[in-house]
Amino acid sequence: MSDQVSISSEIFELLRVPSTATLTSVLAKHGLHNTAMLDVRPLKPGMRMVGQAFTLRYIPAREDLDHGGTTDNLTDPQRVAIERVGPHDVLVIDARGDIRAGSMGAILATRLFKRGAAGAVTDGAFRDYAEIAESGLPAFARAAHPAANKTIHHPTDFQLPIACGGVAVYPGDVVVGDDDGVVVIPRRLAANVAETAVAQEQREEFIFEKIRSGASIVGVYPPSPETLAEYEVWRKQRDRNRG
Amino acid sequence: MSDQVSISSEIFELLRVPSTATLTSVLAKHGLHNTAMLDVRPLKPGMRMVGQAFTLRYIPAREDLDHGGTTDNLTDPQRVAIERVGPHDVLVIDARGDIRAGSMGAILATRLFKRGAAGAVTDGAFRDYAEIAESGLPAFARAAHPAANKTIHHPTDFQLPIACGGVAVYPGDVVVGDDDGVVVIPRRLAANVAETAVAQEQREEFIFEKIRSGASIVGVYPPSPETLAEYEVWRKQRDRNRG
Amino acid sequence: MSDQVSISSEIFELLRVPSTATLTSVLAKHGLHNTAMLDVRPLKPGMRMVGQAFTLRYIPAREDLDHGGTTDNLTDPQRVAIERVGPHDVLVIDARGDIRAGSMGAILATRLFKRGAAGAVTDGAFRDYAEIAESGLPAFARAAHPAANKTIHHPTDFQLPIACGGVAVYPGDVVVGDDDGVVVIPRRLAANVAETAVAQEQREEFIFEKIRSGASIVGVYPPSPETLAEYEVWRKQRDRNRG
Amino acid sequence: MSDQVSISSEIFELLRVPSTATLTSVLAKHGLHNTAMLDVRPLKPGMRMVGQAFTLRYIPAREDLDHGGTTDNLTDPQRVAIERVGPHDVLVIDARGDIRAGSMGAILATRLFKRGAAGAVTDGAFRDYAEIAESGLPAFARAAHPAANKTIHHPTDFQLPIACGGVAVYPGDVVVGDDDGVVVIPRRLAANVAETAVAQEQREEFIFEKIRSGASIVGVYPPSPETLAEYEVWRKQRDRNRG
Amino acid sequence: MSDQVSISSEIFELLRVPSTATLTSVLAKHGLHNTAMLDVRPLKPGMRMVGQAFTLRYIPAREDLDHGGTTDNLTDPQRVAIERVGPHDVLVIDARGDIRAGSMGAILATRLFKRGAAGAVTDGAFRDYAEIAESGLPAFARAAHPAANKTIHHPTDFQLPIACGGVAVYPGDVVVGDDDGVVVIPRRLAANVAETAVAQEQREEFIFEKIRSGASIVGVYPPSPETLAEYEVWRKQRDRNRG
Amino acid sequence: MSDQVSISSEIFELLRVPSTATLTSVLAKHGLHNTAMLDVRPLKPGMRMVGQAFTLRYIPAREDLDHGGTTDNLTDPQRVAIERVGPHDVLVIDARGDIRAGSMGAILATRLFKRGAAGAVTDGAFRDYAEIAESGLPAFARAAHPAANKTIHHPTDFQLPIACGGVAVYPGDVVVGDDDGVVVIPRRLAANVAETAVAQEQREEFIFEKIRSGASIVGVYPPSPETLAEYEVWRKQRDRNRG
Repeated sequence: MSDQVSISSEIFELLRVPSTATLTSVLAKHGLHNTAMLDVRPLKPGMRMVGQAFTLRYIPAREDLDHGGTTDNLTDPQRVAIERVGPHDVLVIDARGDIRAGSMGAILATRLFKRGAAGAVTDGAFRDYAEIAESGLPAFARAAHPAANKTIHHPTDFQLPIACGGVAVYPGDVVVGDDDGVVVIPRRLAANVAETAVAQEQREEFIFEKIRSGASIVGVYPPSPETLAEYEVWRKQRDRNRG
Repeated sequence: MSDQVSISSEIFELLRVPSTATLTSVLAKHGLHNTAMLDVRPLKPGMRMVGQAFTLRYIPAREDLDHGGTTDNLTDPQRVAIERVGPHDVLVIDARGDIRAGSMGAILATRLFKRGAAGAVTDGAFRDYAEIAESGLPAFARAAHPAANKTIHHPTDFQLPIACGGVAVYPGDVVVGDDDGVVVIPRRLAANVAETAVAQEQREEFIFEKIRSGASIVGVYPPSPETLAEYEVWRKQRDRNRG
Repeated sequence: MSDQVSISSEIFELLRVPSTATLTSVLAKHGLHNTAMLDVRPLKPGMRMVGQAFTLRYIPAREDLDHGGTTDNLTDPQRVAIERVGPHDVLVIDARGDIRAGSMGAILATRLFKRGAAGAVTDGAFRDYAEIAESGLPAFARAAHPAANKTIHHPTDFQLPIACGGVAVYPGDVVVGDDDGVVVIPRRLAANVAETAVAQEQREEFIFEKIRSGASIVGVYPPSPETLAEYEVWRKQRDRNRG
Repeated sequence: MSDQVSISSEIFELLRVPSTATLTSVLAKHGLHNTAMLDVRPLKPGMRMVGQAFTLRYIPAREDLDHGGTTDNLTDPQRVAIERVGPHDVLVIDARGDIRAGSMGAILATRLFKRGAAGAVTDGAFRDYAEIAESGLPAFARAAHPAANKTIHHPTDFQLPIACGGVAVYPGDVVVGDDDGVVVIPRRLAANVAETAVAQEQREEFIFEKIRSGASIVGVYPPSPETLAEYEVWRKQRDRNRG
Repeated sequence: MSDQVSISSEIFELLRVPSTATLTSVLAKHGLHNTAMLDVRPLKPGMRMVGQAFTLRYIPAREDLDHGGTTDNLTDPQRVAIERVGPHDVLVIDARGDIRAGSMGAILATRLFKRGAAGAVTDGAFRDYAEIAESGLPAFARAAHPAANKTIHHPTDFQLPIACGGVAVYPGDVVVGDDDGVVVIPRRLAANVAETAVAQEQREEFIFEKIRSGASIVGVYPPSPETLAEYEVWRKQRDRNRG
Repeated sequence: MSDQVSISSEIFELLRVPSTATLTSVLAKHGLHNTAMLDVRPLKPGMRMVGQAFTLRYIPAREDLDHGGTTDNLTDPQRVAIERVGPHDVLVIDARGDIRAGSMGAILATRLFKRGAAGAVTDGAFRDYAEIAESGLPAFARAAHPAANKTIHHPTDFQLPIACGGVAVYPGDVVVGDDDGVVVIPRRLAANVAETAVAQEQREEFIFEKIRSGASIVGVYPPSPETLAEYEVWRKQRDRNRG
């Protein structure tokens, strides 16, 4: 999408470093406290996803519109969306939290993967859950359900602002997922958040090492000025070693 | 809205007769079984509403967009929608079933009433609940909550297809409410459903009288051919008396 | 039902005196702590119901069995049940707590009333809610919904043990309802519970009067031996006055 | 409680004027967006409550501690709390949102009323619901349930910070209730919020009158500088008339 | 059960091929849209189950009936059912979706396995969750819980129609489970559904291969006449190779 | 904590043997039927935990108290608690079942592990879910969520009685967790329960072996006098072999 290209590859690379836990903390410092989707999990442990939201919206199905017909790939919003999603895009589906049918199955997830998509998220369910988990596409959902989407959903439009997992998602927002779930970063904050989060992640790595070595949290987490000074030395040393 | 004028006043008048229970039954005969909103009630008993859906959509609020600013009546979708709603229109708000804030308060409800609106429906809450109940505007909601809408909602657009109470609502759909809740009738079926429902309502009135007089349901509800013949006599007699 | 006649009219009369709150307390002394249905309310304030459970069970509907056909009063378990319910019977419907359709409407409720039924209870919804509330039949439910029962329910059998509002209901159990909800009394305990509850209700009336007059709860609720002695005097005085 | 006397009677009087909707808006301007309890309603329409929180905390019951014994008014935290609550106090009960038993019944509610309490709130249920509604005590709850509190609750302590309806309640916080629900005002903000809310309520009254007279919301709600100037004239005129 | 033998082994074999996702789609073409249990999952990934429903029904426990006694294997419906279940049978337990106790533990699950049962399903929980997962018996549930069934359940009868996971289950219905959950196939449709599903599964395998090779969904999913022709060639070729 | 030392190491060792399923059964014989937390699971399969409850209580956050400040390890109740927890202690967090933020993250969990803690339990979520799962600390929760605790929680105090997963937890209660969830054993019953449970576990092991060998449950589970006699022989033989 032409209006999404402004997030540079460097930013995406930076965002591969911090966890969603760190990103949530950084966003909280920007005054944003509702940025992580509720009850949306990776289809298998260890999945990690970074990309920009390509939004797709479902409303409840109506029998005369959604049951029994053949899906037309040229007009059905779900199908049109799938053939528009490209590299760095994450298809984010507003399924109203309804898990009584899958939002998508393995064939379409595989097509997304082949198009280079960065992931797929729904606050509903996926069908062919195990196949999607193995498809290569990072995918996040609330549950598994075998039924096809039109059993209860009607795909109505794409690239509009949506709700997903109780969070607002605007097209082009940056979407990051890991074992803790999925975080939405407003696009205008993406560069700033990425840099701050990488720095915070590094500092927490240092703190984590101290705690693992038996230090008390007092003076360490949060760090005292002494600990911060110690961290600066550690960081420079490490950068030198890497350099 | 120009694309909504095709429902004639006669149809609206007819739809004042049957209950939502009867309308639901008639829609079921058209194969539509999910037409009544879940857990949406009149703000006070006895409210009755008939009109066409003017849809308004909310997504979750984001602090930087929704907390603290002044609402601009010329750009805020909720406010623009309210000043566009006219006679026969029912403002139907997709609040994602979220009752942690009001979808609207008494001042806006009163404005809708003054503009001649036929009603207001949300699958969230209303604030100023008691005042809206007394405002003259038929109104239906899941709950009362004192907080302003932007506490948790972001009005995003209007006159798009939405979900409300688990039912698909397309702009221009006919919306009928009474003590049992709110039913959505696809616009193309409105005339047909209205006529069938009036006839069924009349027949059930006859059946109800028989049951009240002590008849068994056997042969009466559903009616046997004999009962139907008896009904025809009763109906003609009554029409004659009215004529 | 022949196996239900053993509850005497005297017991039913006694059970009209105590509140469901008192009955719940008495049942707790018998070791029964889960006797009141959850989230089941009278259709209008002030309703009071005493009778014996005539149970009716619903399972989920299946389209090929439940959508579209005509109901046969001679085979449909709901309809057969309704024409069997008699005086002192309360029709108790296991609707699995599902409020996406009415368990029954006003015509059938009226038929129950005409047959002398003591009430109707569902842990689902009723349609024609307002009409049932005015029908004369004490009725208790979780919600109102306009859809007919077979939209989501399949009446499967009657007079089997069921769940209703999270409580076990055996055919013939005594069922009492008031503004606090509905309590189920195992049939074998009915006489004992009735007598104890009437006595406790009378004692609480005395306590209530003292509290209304400004007494502290200390020594009064629960009553000290002195208060109990005072109560005995009060009670005998009152009985004498009534006699 | 000695640490609660600092809220002056004047502040309580001021707080009788604005609605909970207005108070919620004023608190939002202080950055507090989660101040209204979820799903807690007056026991009958029109109840209005203003007072300071006297908190009481329940944890789940355990059979060996809570079933079967006699309640000791001198040690049971619920009973001790009730005999300590005084004028301007609102007993606020943390029932963990659990409605499977009443948090309190009519005898204790009446005792609170006789002690001059300003109200009672629970995020659980009340038993003797109808009697409490008529007792004179403003009372707010999620539901009615006939069972005694110790069926599922164990009163554990009082005057500690608690959760009620998803909101933090600190002892001494100001608690206001009306038809929209219950709002909690941090004690240190009470005077400030009261004054701002009264002024806002008055301004909204003016706006409401204009809308009732047929004005558009544009320029009126929110008010333009012209409308605010008009309001100032109206306000002074009214004050003069009242003077 | 003598009335269940009519499902041939061939049909069971066929039903091992298609996924529950495919079966749900085939059933939708028969007009059945509510055939997959909600929120019921395999105890470990990769489980696959095909059999006929042997139904068991639980209602809420009552302390005097269910707490404290010894279970009698000759009268307790759960125990009797377990010793009647045989090859091709799947024990399906209606636990009302209540996960506050296990519906069954590892000893009974192992007994089912030894009797040759095809699986066990509950819409409640299982206890000894990990042991059942390793027992060899395909098992599906909503959750794990350590408590014994009679803590909250009373086994009341078996081989009656039940609800499980929001779906109607009639004794003898065919029950298929995999990673997406559990699907219920009405017995009279089993042969027809099995054949159609196998064919559809094969066609989707072909489609899946094309998508994996980089084809667009346009013209492929759903397949155009050209793609279908191509599929027929592919299928014949494959059959020839297999032959 | 000095008042917790009375549980001997022998008791803790004994409690490593039986499953939570067995412990729940033994507690039921003491009349305690609500001892297992609802919907609280190990962070990865196979975790086993035995220790004494060190309780920590959260109430809802308030923006002015909980958002934006730096955590002070010397006053924040969560942090103070963590530096007090010692060997055999399980940190049990009352998070009101709210999973909209983590109750704790990996750094603090690791600190608990380094302090020798026996585990951590919350009825909310954990952040850094995967890292905690690998930290060595047995941990149980309802879900994963990336947000920091103060997003929605305010740590208010520790070592008071709390609710966790719907169960009362008193400081010093014994807490045991495995794949079925977490069971709370009142401290005064710990020794008695431990011994009974070990014996019952051993007997069930014998029964399990018989069932695995193809025995019917009749006469075996529950065991007949003959089976019990057989068990005694088996047990003595085994003890002899081990000795």
